[in-house]
Amino acid sequence: MKKYTVAVVGATGVVGREMIQVLESRNFPVGTLVPLASERSAGAEVEFHGKHIEVKVLNKDSFDGVDIALFSAGGSVSAEFAPIAAKSGAVAIDNTSHFRMFPDVPLVVPEVNAHAIKGHKGIISNPNCSTAQMVLVLKPFHDAGIIERVVVSTYQSVSGAGKEGMNELESQSRKTLSGMEIECKKFPHPIAFNLIPQIDSFLENGYTKEEVKMIEETKKILGDPSIQVTATTVRVPVFVGHSESINIQTKRKLSVAQVRELLSVMPGVEVMDDPSKLIYPTPRETAGRDEVFVGRIREDLSHPRAIDLWCVSDNLRKGAALNAVQIAEAWMQG
Amino acid sequence: MKKYTVAVVGATGVVGREMIQVLESRNFPVGTLVPLASERSAGAEVEFHGKHIEVKVLNKDSFDGVDIALFSAGGSVSAEFAPIAAKSGAVAIDNTSHFRMFPDVPLVVPEVNAHAIKGHKGIISNPNCSTAQMVLVLKPFHDAGIIERVVVSTYQSVSGAGKEGMNELESQSRKTLSGMEIECKKFPHPIAFNLIPQIDSFLENGYTKEEVKMIEETKKILGDPSIQVTATTVRVPVFVGHSESINIQTKRKLSVAQVRELLSVMPGVEVMDDPSKLIYPTPRETAGRDEVFVGRIREDLSHPRAIDLWCVSDNLRKGAALNAVQIAEAWMQG
Repeated sequence: MKKYTVAVVGATGVVGREMIQVLESRNFPVGTLVPLASERSAGAEVEFHGKHIEVKVLNKDSFDGVDIALFSAGGSVSAEFAPIAAKSGAVAIDNTSHFRMFPDVPLVVPEVNAHAIKGHKGIISNPNCSTAQMVLVLKPFHDAGIIERVVVSTYQSVSGAGKEGMNELESQSRKTLSGMEIECKKFPHPIAFNLIPQIDSFLENGYTKEEVKMIEETKKILGDPSIQVTATTVRVPVFVGHSESINIQTKRKLSVAQVRELLSVMPGVEVMDDPSKLIYPTPRETAGRDEVFVGRIREDLSHPRAIDLWCVSDNLRKGAALNAVQIAEAWMQG
Repeated sequence: MKKYTVAVVGATGVVGREMIQVLESRNFPVGTLVPLASERSAGAEVEFHGKHIEVKVLNKDSFDGVDIALFSAGGSVSAEFAPIAAKSGAVAIDNTSHFRMFPDVPLVVPEVNAHAIKGHKGIISNPNCSTAQMVLVLKPFHDAGIIERVVVSTYQSVSGAGKEGMNELESQSRKTLSGMEIECKKFPHPIAFNLIPQIDSFLENGYTKEEVKMIEETKKILGDPSIQVTATTVRVPVFVGHSESINIQTKRKLSVAQVRELLSVMPGVEVMDDPSKLIYPTPRETAGRDEVFVGRIREDLSHPRAIDLWCVSDNLRKGAALNAVQIAEAWMQG
């Protein structure tokens, strides 16, 4: 079996480490792992299949001999280095938002649109974490009922903002419980025992970039620019796992039983929905899992053709590292 | 000036204590305060205008000579004792859900439908906390644009579940940060660093009672059964303050500028919305305030006549104690 030389750019970050873990746990055919990071992480090590591998400083020659380069080190790093990786013959799979809406860059959730990989020109984009889990849930609605409109409100964990976000929640929580003053460094407002209705920066129209990512990326991945989406994205004091309250309005009425059936056969989705036993997904209880979990499925009392549901997924997995590795797997299979 | 004998049933609970504080801070004309509670709280004291007053055990004779009885001790207590209070000549203002949908019981948010008080027959209901703050925001939309449909997702603090809810968040948070096992007593799942997409119990149609309260009570308070509402209510690890992501679709298109103008003159509402300065309401930063705060106001990109916004309010104030006292004030003024 062919083995691949795989570079991970941003190897010491929360998502980078998760990528390496996912490559290992899925037994991805890695011949050589090349962990890359900025000078700040020079000398650090990562563990892979029991071996310690030194993290190298990213530079223009880093991609010589690399087959697959997984990027998760920020938009500007991808903007500069993903084209270099592609030029040197690697396929660059980019977890940042930089290339996602470029017309010649496929934006892929393999269970939904693996076919789009074929058109790639060296760079394939991984969607925004909150989009990835949502499109998996929307796909069966799209196929069976034709989606007219989606109204989504998110509950996103601090790990979406990396290690610093997780550290800030932890330190602010400790200080609050001890009655001490807290400091805000990573987030613009306190996040401990609080909510911040802002993720990423604001645009002229009052939406945040995170919200517009959910709107635009959903249309691109499902391949239907007519799907109407509105989103309100909110940071919540949870370490890992993004949750979403989604209202889905379709052209053709779908019953709860149909939706349940469709979602239960959808790859990557697990229905976890039994109100009589108080069963529904929560982020703390599903963190570390690969699936996108769906519960609270019900017919919307306010509309003749709409469904309300609650969806939870580990944002570091399906929202980032897992999906990137799945793209690599789909690419490998040609 | 006439002074009133005011009973507070459930005087030692989170809302009961807040009621007494609000009566004091608003200089409500209390001649005699009668704090009442169950036998478990016998011998406890409350403080009112610098005096310590002994809490008495609630019984059938507790309302002799009482003018106003504020109830917040659970539905079954109200079911039994509010009619007794009314029969003995008091007006009972009930914070539980028990009487809210009774046709002959007014359900009142004074800024919205103070006129409904006139028809009371001894009992006036205070709405559910998440409904109270929402209808204040919906009122100007209802008046100016005629509301067609509302899609709301809530982010509700643990104080909505009383002292036990607050204690559970605190103790689970401490234990989680120390790497200790946690126990779930008040909530069916962990609440520390987690979300629970269930408030109150489940109904046959998959909604929770909390969600149906938001649907039904909104129609009753705004006096328009044609308003379509769907709600997903979620408990979040915040101590005080409920937040709501609300999508409001109107018959007549309202611009953001119009909405901002309408909300800024709405009594009880404060617009806190300046994305350029990262200003929007958060629960931690607005707890202890009386107003319902609104931010993130924007035209919904998915619909030609809809507005998205974010609304935060101290659930113990406008959602409970403050609104109850405001009902008493409106009743007093006849």
